[in-house]
Amino acid sequence: MTYKYKHINLTEGFISFINDHQLLQAEEPVLLAVSGGVDSVVMCSLFHEARLHFAIAHCNFGLRGQESEEDEAFVHTLAQQYQVEFFTKRFNTKAYAKTNKLSTQMAARELRYAWFKELCNIHQIDKLATAHHANDCLETVLFNLTKGTSIAGLHGILPKQNNLIRPLLFASKENLLQYAQAKGLSWREDSSNKQDDYARNLIRHQVIPSLKLINPNLESTTNLTIDRLSQVEKLFNEQLENIRKEIFFQQEDIHYILIQKIKEKPWAAVALWELLKPFGFNFLQIKNLLHPSVQIGKSVYVDNYQLYVDRTTWMLTDRKQTTVTSKHIANEKIKNINFLGKNLQLQVIPKEIYQITHTNEIAALDLDKLQFPLTIRSWQTGDFFYPLGMLKRKKLSDFLIDQKVPLVLKQKVCVLESKGQIVWVIGYRIDDRFKITDTTKQIYELQLTSFSKS
Amino acid sequence: MTYKYKHINLTEGFISFINDHQLLQAEEPVLLAVSGGVDSVVMCSLFHEARLHFAIAHCNFGLRGQESEEDEAFVHTLAQQYQVEFFTKRFNTKAYAKTNKLSTQMAARELRYAWFKELCNIHQIDKLATAHHANDCLETVLFNLTKGTSIAGLHGILPKQNNLIRPLLFASKENLLQYAQAKGLSWREDSSNKQDDYARNLIRHQVIPSLKLINPNLESTTNLTIDRLSQVEKLFNEQLENIRKEIFFQQEDIHYILIQKIKEKPWAAVALWELLKPFGFNFLQIKNLLHPSVQIGKSVYVDNYQLYVDRTTWMLTDRKQTTVTSKHIANEKIKNINFLGKNLQLQVIPKEIYQITHTNEIAALDLDKLQFPLTIRSWQTGDFFYPLGMLKRKKLSDFLIDQKVPLVLKQKVCVLESKGQIVWVIGYRIDDRFKITDTTKQIYELQLTSFSKS
Repeated sequence: MTYKYKHINLTEGFISFINDHQLLQAEEPVLLAVSGGVDSVVMCSLFHEARLHFAIAHCNFGLRGQESEEDEAFVHTLAQQYQVEFFTKRFNTKAYAKTNKLSTQMAARELRYAWFKELCNIHQIDKLATAHHANDCLETVLFNLTKGTSIAGLHGILPKQNNLIRPLLFASKENLLQYAQAKGLSWREDSSNKQDDYARNLIRHQVIPSLKLINPNLESTTNLTIDRLSQVEKLFNEQLENIRKEIFFQQEDIHYILIQKIKEKPWAAVALWELLKPFGFNFLQIKNLLHPSVQIGKSVYVDNYQLYVDRTTWMLTDRKQTTVTSKHIANEKIKNINFLGKNLQLQVIPKEIYQITHTNEIAALDLDKLQFPLTIRSWQTGDFFYPLGMLKRKKLSDFLIDQKVPLVLKQKVCVLESKGQIVWVIGYRIDDRFKITDTTKQIYELQLTSFSKS
Repeated sequence: MTYKYKHINLTEGFISFINDHQLLQAEEPVLLAVSGGVDSVVMCSLFHEARLHFAIAHCNFGLRGQESEEDEAFVHTLAQQYQVEFFTKRFNTKAYAKTNKLSTQMAARELRYAWFKELCNIHQIDKLATAHHANDCLETVLFNLTKGTSIAGLHGILPKQNNLIRPLLFASKENLLQYAQAKGLSWREDSSNKQDDYARNLIRHQVIPSLKLINPNLESTTNLTIDRLSQVEKLFNEQLENIRKEIFFQQEDIHYILIQKIKEKPWAAVALWELLKPFGFNFLQIKNLLHPSVQIGKSVYVDNYQLYVDRTTWMLTDRKQTTVTSKHIANEKIKNINFLGKNLQLQVIPKEIYQITHTNEIAALDLDKLQFPLTIRSWQTGDFFYPLGMLKRKKLSDFLIDQKVPLVLKQKVCVLESKGQIVWVIGYRIDDRFKITDTTKQIYELQLTSFSKS
């Protein structure tokens, strides 16, 4: 993918490129995706010249009538010339596109790669090669830049992605055409190529020719630029993982982001954006959240997520999970119950042997005061109870404010009810009316635990 | 420099941009560079609307005869309208360009910034503002990409560089034109703008219009992309400094690069390239040096530097400094002498009180066996001596091989001569013929030290 492949002949460049990027092991067979266009025809010739083992696969998408049939026949003949295995398949592309609500282009893409994968499996071929070249790569970079991109959009097309290899990326379209002409190869012109999609056409036929007036070696220069930028990207990704380990952690179903540690860094926005992108946040939202004017207590809602800004930390919760449909505890024999990623262990214990533990995670109640079935539900406006140790009733909303429960946690608070009366604000405080007294005989103990995260 | 400035009016965008990037302190005066073109005319209007303190500076490069005079008069009038201070200066640009062998464009640039700097000093103005906008920035990025670039070439034009600020970078050329028209501003068309330079013209009039057909918001999208990439660049630079501290060190005038520590990293080439760029190395040279096929002992020569590949380390030396013109020690009273960044301390000590130190940095010789003046010179092919402890003469080249002196150090080896005989291979071994014996009366001690690096 670098400049050095420019001055030597194409076959040598091809072999160097394969070696430098470790695309193939010796004697390893490769399935070549061959449309019959000049790029894939040159690829076959190079594999043949380099004495590599290959088979040819051709997709007939049936989109251009007689032309499609002729393409298939052409590639079949090519395979016979090289005396290699030939696979072909006809697809009903239009029907697939319609059924799956895809563009014809996307449908063809899906069908193609699914079939290639199947072929590789059946014939025990580990590598699939496509004929993408330096101009395809350059077009992709310019397209990404035009549409807006992160650093990842600038590495263009990679030489190797899982079992897919692109051994022609070192060469420009011009190099391939020159080679094809010099070798007297014949190929099929794809009439659909010329219409192609609008954006790629503009880039290919308007933008790149202008840029080549400034730099005639644009493709090889860009290959070098991409090589540098993709290395910067790798270092960036390595650091991003370190940052993630340092500032991200998850407890139950809340993600905590310790932004205090990085918020003054000049790269804070891009790092947080990369880390929060999977949740649907965009760069500008992150920039705005980092703005010094942002108030503590601010919340941002994106897709299914809510991000809550606390003093030193951002808290991220899944909004879908924040309300719980009522759950019932039928009787005192039920041993445990799950809700909101948490688990309640339930047991009845004679008072004589009970040892009180002072923790909010355990509620010890007077069994005789309870009336089954008990209900677990999300708290709601208007709820009130008698917090343990207080003699008068209190609005639950006021109680949660007093306890300084952050918004993201507040939304997840559930209550345990007995006959419409709140018995326990789960994980926070039991109700004074249901506490253990001298007259208690049996204790109903509820212990809150999280699922262990494996 | 971000998308959010798009939907609000230009003055608000201008103020937000200045605040977000902390371009100015409250009440701080700014010198505006005003050509009289639409960009700088809009800049004046925005500074006026935002009630900022400013003065106007206009350069008359005298390149377009009457037009240049009219431009100057126009900007003068503009300053009068805003009731701000006006500075102007005429330059003999062509003569300056000729004398300094510069293009007219580069000459104008040098003259302009030198004069602005002078003005700022005289009038105690700390900030200079130019009217670069988002399209200038976009053009720069596309130009750098076309010519090949590192990550640094993708940050485009920075909002702030030392005391130079660009407060219009948030706005596109189109935004500025719309504002000028809406405000009924008048401005001067610069006929030279239309010819401009070839590359910029192609990008401005051919490339960008095509890309805008794909993305009509190209300028603001690119501003966001640049913002992200420049943050990646900052994180990269931070890491680069860490890598430098870990693997680079200098001893005397040799740079040692402990490549062992990073050579397997996927970002090794780009990091080493950034670190070695100041010495003249290009990316491809670094890639080739990292190739597994590179032999230990290989040397690469670039500009004035030589890079020598050792097993775990690269050694970098300045080739200019590797030979020393002969230096002479006139007599035994000389106390010290410098050569190749090293220092020799010289003294005569009676044998009775002399304490021998066994180190290669100190030579203890029999004074009576020496004949002044002594000479220090680089070693040369054909040199031989009698290494201490050996009874037969040895070629110096063989001695240095036996001692496994790496190539970069070998070139710097100097010898001390007395009447054509080698007395000391400085820093390695004395000659057996000049050693101290039982009959020695006075010892001539030479002690090798490096200059302390401050």
